[in-house]
Amino acid sequence: MNHVVLVGFMGSGKSTVGPLLAERLGRPFTDLDARIERESGAAVAEIFAREGEAGFRARESAALTRVMAEEPQVVAVGGGAPLADENWRRMREANVVVALLAEPQTLAGRLQGSLHRPLLREGVPAAIERLLPARLARYREADLVLDTDGRSAAAVASAIQDALPDGALHRVAVPVHGRGHEVVVGRRLQHLAGPALRHAGVQGTVVIASDASIAAQHAAPLKAAVEAAGLRTACYALPAGETAKTIGAVTDFYRFLAGAGVDRQGAILALGGGAVGDACGFVAATWLRGVPLLQVPTTLLAMVDSSIGGKNGINLEDGKNLVGTIHQPCGILDDITHLATLPDRAYRASWAEVIKSAIIADTNLFDVLARGASPARSRDGEYLGRVIAATCAIKARVVAADPFEAGERAILNYGHTVGHALEAALGYGSLAHGEAVAWGMQVAADLSWRSGRCPESVVRAQEQMLRDYGLLDRPPRVDPARVFAAMRHDKKAQDGEVRWVLLTGIGHAEYGCRVPFEDVERSVAAVLA
Amino acid sequence: MNHVVLVGFMGSGKSTVGPLLAERLGRPFTDLDARIERESGAAVAEIFAREGEAGFRARESAALTRVMAEEPQVVAVGGGAPLADENWRRMREANVVVALLAEPQTLAGRLQGSLHRPLLREGVPAAIERLLPARLARYREADLVLDTDGRSAAAVASAIQDALPDGALHRVAVPVHGRGHEVVVGRRLQHLAGPALRHAGVQGTVVIASDASIAAQHAAPLKAAVEAAGLRTACYALPAGETAKTIGAVTDFYRFLAGAGVDRQGAILALGGGAVGDACGFVAATWLRGVPLLQVPTTLLAMVDSSIGGKNGINLEDGKNLVGTIHQPCGILDDITHLATLPDRAYRASWAEVIKSAIIADTNLFDVLARGASPARSRDGEYLGRVIAATCAIKARVVAADPFEAGERAILNYGHTVGHALEAALGYGSLAHGEAVAWGMQVAADLSWRSGRCPESVVRAQEQMLRDYGLLDRPPRVDPARVFAAMRHDKKAQDGEVRWVLLTGIGHAEYGCRVPFEDVERSVAAVLA
Repeated sequence: MNHVVLVGFMGSGKSTVGPLLAERLGRPFTDLDARIERESGAAVAEIFAREGEAGFRARESAALTRVMAEEPQVVAVGGGAPLADENWRRMREANVVVALLAEPQTLAGRLQGSLHRPLLREGVPAAIERLLPARLARYREADLVLDTDGRSAAAVASAIQDALPDGALHRVAVPVHGRGHEVVVGRRLQHLAGPALRHAGVQGTVVIASDASIAAQHAAPLKAAVEAAGLRTACYALPAGETAKTIGAVTDFYRFLAGAGVDRQGAILALGGGAVGDACGFVAATWLRGVPLLQVPTTLLAMVDSSIGGKNGINLEDGKNLVGTIHQPCGILDDITHLATLPDRAYRASWAEVIKSAIIADTNLFDVLARGASPARSRDGEYLGRVIAATCAIKARVVAADPFEAGERAILNYGHTVGHALEAALGYGSLAHGEAVAWGMQVAADLSWRSGRCPESVVRAQEQMLRDYGLLDRPPRVDPARVFAAMRHDKKAQDGEVRWVLLTGIGHAEYGCRVPFEDVERSVAAVLA
Repeated sequence: MNHVVLVGFMGSGKSTVGPLLAERLGRPFTDLDARIERESGAAVAEIFAREGEAGFRARESAALTRVMAEEPQVVAVGGGAPLADENWRRMREANVVVALLAEPQTLAGRLQGSLHRPLLREGVPAAIERLLPARLARYREADLVLDTDGRSAAAVASAIQDALPDGALHRVAVPVHGRGHEVVVGRRLQHLAGPALRHAGVQGTVVIASDASIAAQHAAPLKAAVEAAGLRTACYALPAGETAKTIGAVTDFYRFLAGAGVDRQGAILALGGGAVGDACGFVAATWLRGVPLLQVPTTLLAMVDSSIGGKNGINLEDGKNLVGTIHQPCGILDDITHLATLPDRAYRASWAEVIKSAIIADTNLFDVLARGASPARSRDGEYLGRVIAATCAIKARVVAADPFEAGERAILNYGHTVGHALEAALGYGSLAHGEAVAWGMQVAADLSWRSGRCPESVVRAQEQMLRDYGLLDRPPRVDPARVFAAMRHDKKAQDGEVRWVLLTGIGHAEYGCRVPFEDVERSVAAVLA
C-alpha cells in the first residue's frame, strides 16, 4: 500500500492509535492537523478564528495533497477532512482508509476538557449530535471500520495491523446508474468484505457460497473477517463447475437460504470463479426479490470479466445462460493472492480476455501486455494488480455506458462468436473458454483484415501476444460446418444472421458488423487449418 | 369512448378514412385543419404565411381543446399536432387514438401536387425525410396503429371499426423511473396489445401464457389481434392456480421458450389472474436476462393490485413468494369484459383490495364505493371502469414513489399482516385472499382505534362497506395462537417484530407502527370472535 489513512470523529483515538500502528508497520506517522499547525505557524483554533472554517478546510486540503505525495506512512486526518469529496478521493487513491468509530458517550467522555477544539465551542454533546451523523455516513465507506469502545489503543492498532491488505490497492469505479460500486484489486482483501457489506445495508446473515474445493482453500479467512465485522455468516457449498448453474442447484440453494432464515437484511458473498459468480448472482437477484451480492472472484477470468457488469446466467439443457438477470453487485474484491493456487491451464486461458480487452479498447494496456509475458508467467503480484485493474476499468466503462446490453456492450463479445461456436461444436469443457476465445479472436482479426478494416500487422500483433501468453497452442480439430451451424444458433444472432465485432486497429473495434459468409469461411479456414 | 382521433403523416389518408369511419360509427366527423380554417376565415397556408408555424400551432392547440370537449366524434388532426405533449395528452384522454401509417414512397405518391401544404414547400421527398422520423415515433405510441399501404380507405375504416374498444378508455400512468408505462382500463382492448408490444420494441414471438381455462375463454381474440398487428404468437398453458408458481412449472415454461426459439425480440403476454401474472413476470424477468412483459389481467384482484408494481413471486415448499424479482411490465390492459365470467366468490373477494386502497389513500374513492355496492354487484361496466382506474391510480402513485419497496410501499400491506397469517394458519385456499384481507383490515382498523389513532366511526364505516360488498360473511374458525405464530414468521416482520399499517382516518394510513401485543390480542379477539 501507499498510506494507511486513519479517519474518525474527534475523540475516536486516531492520534493515539496512529503512532502505535506506525511503529508496528515501521513507517512514519503524520497527524495532519499537527502538520497544518507547523506549516502555518498557527494553532488550528487560531486559523479557524482568523480565516473561518472555509480557510482552515482549504489549508487542510492542500496539506493532504502534499502528504499523500510523500513516502508511505500512517496519516491521521481531522474528523471533517473526509467530508469533502475531493479529499476523500485523494485519501483513498491506492491507500487503505481505516475508520475508527466510538459510541457518542465514549466520544463525549474522551473529549471532556478539549476546549481548544474550535468545533466544540457549543459544548461537547451538542457538537457530537450536530456533526456525527453526516460524518459517520462517510466513515462507514472506509475500507476497514473498527469499533474502539472498550478497547485500548494498542489493541486497536493490533487489530488494524491484522486486517490490513498487503500492499497498495487499485480501485476501479463501476458507475452504473443507481447501482454504482467499486472493484478493489489488491492482496489479502478479506477484511474489506465486512465493511463493504455493511455499507450496502447488510445487517443479517452473509451466506458465503463457493464450491467445496475453493471453500477449502479460501473460505476460512473470509468467514473470520466478516464475523469480525459483526455479521453472522453461513457457508454454502455449490456443486463444482457448471453444475452450479442448473435449475436443480439453484433450487437447492434457495432451500438452504430458507432453512438458514436469510431475510432481506442478509446477503450473498460469491467466492469462486465464473460459475459460482453466475449462480450466486442469479440467486441474489431472485431471493426475496433481490438481496445484496458481494463478488470475491478467485480466478483471473472472473476478476477481469464475469464479476463485472451484473450479468448472471443459468444453463438449461437447451443452451447455456438462457436464464438470468442483470443484478449489479454491491462490490467486487479481486484478491490477487487467490491466483497463486489457480491451476496453470485455467490461469493461462484467462489471459485471452485480458488481451481481448486491450485490443478492442486500450492501446496503453496493449503496450503493457506486450512487455509483460514474463511477469505474467511468474504471477507477479504487482504486474497482476496493475493489469487486472486496467482490464476491469475497460469493462466498467463499457458496462456503465450500456448497463442493459442495448448497444456498445456488444464490443466485449470480440472473439466470442467463433469462441462460443467452438465450445459448442467441440462439446463444453474440451477447450477452456479462454482458449476458445483466443481462436475466436484470431478468426475475428483475420476477418477484420480481410474486410479491409485493419492492416495485416494488427492480426500478426494479436497472434504474437496470444502466443506469448501461452495461447493458440494447437488448432482444435473441428469440422468448420459444425462451427458455422453453432454460430447461427447463438443467442446473439439476429434472425440467424451473425453480427461481428471487428478491429479497426489496436485498441479500436466496432460492433454490429456484417460480412459476406465467404469471408467468414476463408478466415475460419485460414486460422483453424 | 369519447372520440376516435386519427393521427398520421400528411397523405396517410386521415381525411379520406375519417368520414367513412364516422359514417360506420354513426357520429360526426371533424377535420381539425378544416375547423381551424373555418374559425379563422383563412387557409392554413395563409396562417402559416402570416403568423409562422408557431402561430398556427397555437390555433391548432386551441381548436383541439374545443373539439375534444364536444360530443363524441371522429376527429382527424394535422400530422404535426401530436408532437406537442399537451396536445397528445388531450387527444388521448378517454379517447382512442388511431395512427395511420404508410411507407414514404406511398406518402410521396399521394402527396404529389399538394403544393398548398406549407410544410411541403421544400419538395415532397425532402419534407418526408425531414419530418417523418420524429412523427413516426409519436404515431407509434397510438392505441391502434394501421398500415395503409395497398389498402382502400373503406378497408382501413372497416379495420379500425373492428379493432376499436367498446366505450371510453381510462388511462393511469405508472411513472416508475426509467420503466414508465400505462394501465389502460376499458372494454374490448385486445387490439391495443400489438401496438403496445411493438412500442416496447417487440418484433419477435409473443408468447400468450395463460392457464387452460382462461385461455379457452379469452385467448383467441387476443391472439388474432396480436397477429393482425404483424407479430408472431405462440400460446402456452400454465398449470392452474398456484401450481403455476412452482420451480417445476417455471422450468417447463423455460423449456417451452427455448423450443419456440423465443429470443430477445420476443415478449411474454400474461393473460390471467395473479398466479399467471406472477409466473409470467418471473419468467419474463429471467428469460435471456429479461424480455418485455404485457399484463392482461382477467380478475378484478389482478387488475387493481398484482399486475401493477412489477413484483412477481414463485413459491417454495418453505413459503410463498420467496423467489422473485421486480420487473416492470411494458403495459397493463385491464379489459373489463373479462370480469363478466369471473366466478362470484373470487369477484366478491377482490373488492377487499379496492376498499383497502380507498381507506388507506383516497377519501373520494371511499365515497364512490359507499354508493356503489349495487352497480358492483351487477358488474356494471361504467362503474367498474371508473373504480378500477381510481384504484390503479392509488397503487401506481405509491409504487412510483417507492419502486423497490424501501418504505412507503408498505402502506399497501394494510390488512395483510393478519390476512396472510389467517391464510397460513387455515391452510392456503381455505379463505380467498380477499376474504382473509377483509378480516385483516377489520383487525387493523380495530387496532388503529384501540391505539388511539382514529375514531371508532372509521372502524364501523369500513366494516359496513366490507359487508355491503359481500365480505366479512362469517368469522373464520381459527385458534388465535396460530395466527400470532404465523404473523411472527411473515417475511415482512423484522427480527420477529410485526410492524403495522394503521389508519389515522378514512383515506389516511401510516406504516411501520409498533403496538403492544396485548392490543393485538384484544383486536384479534374482538374481530374474529
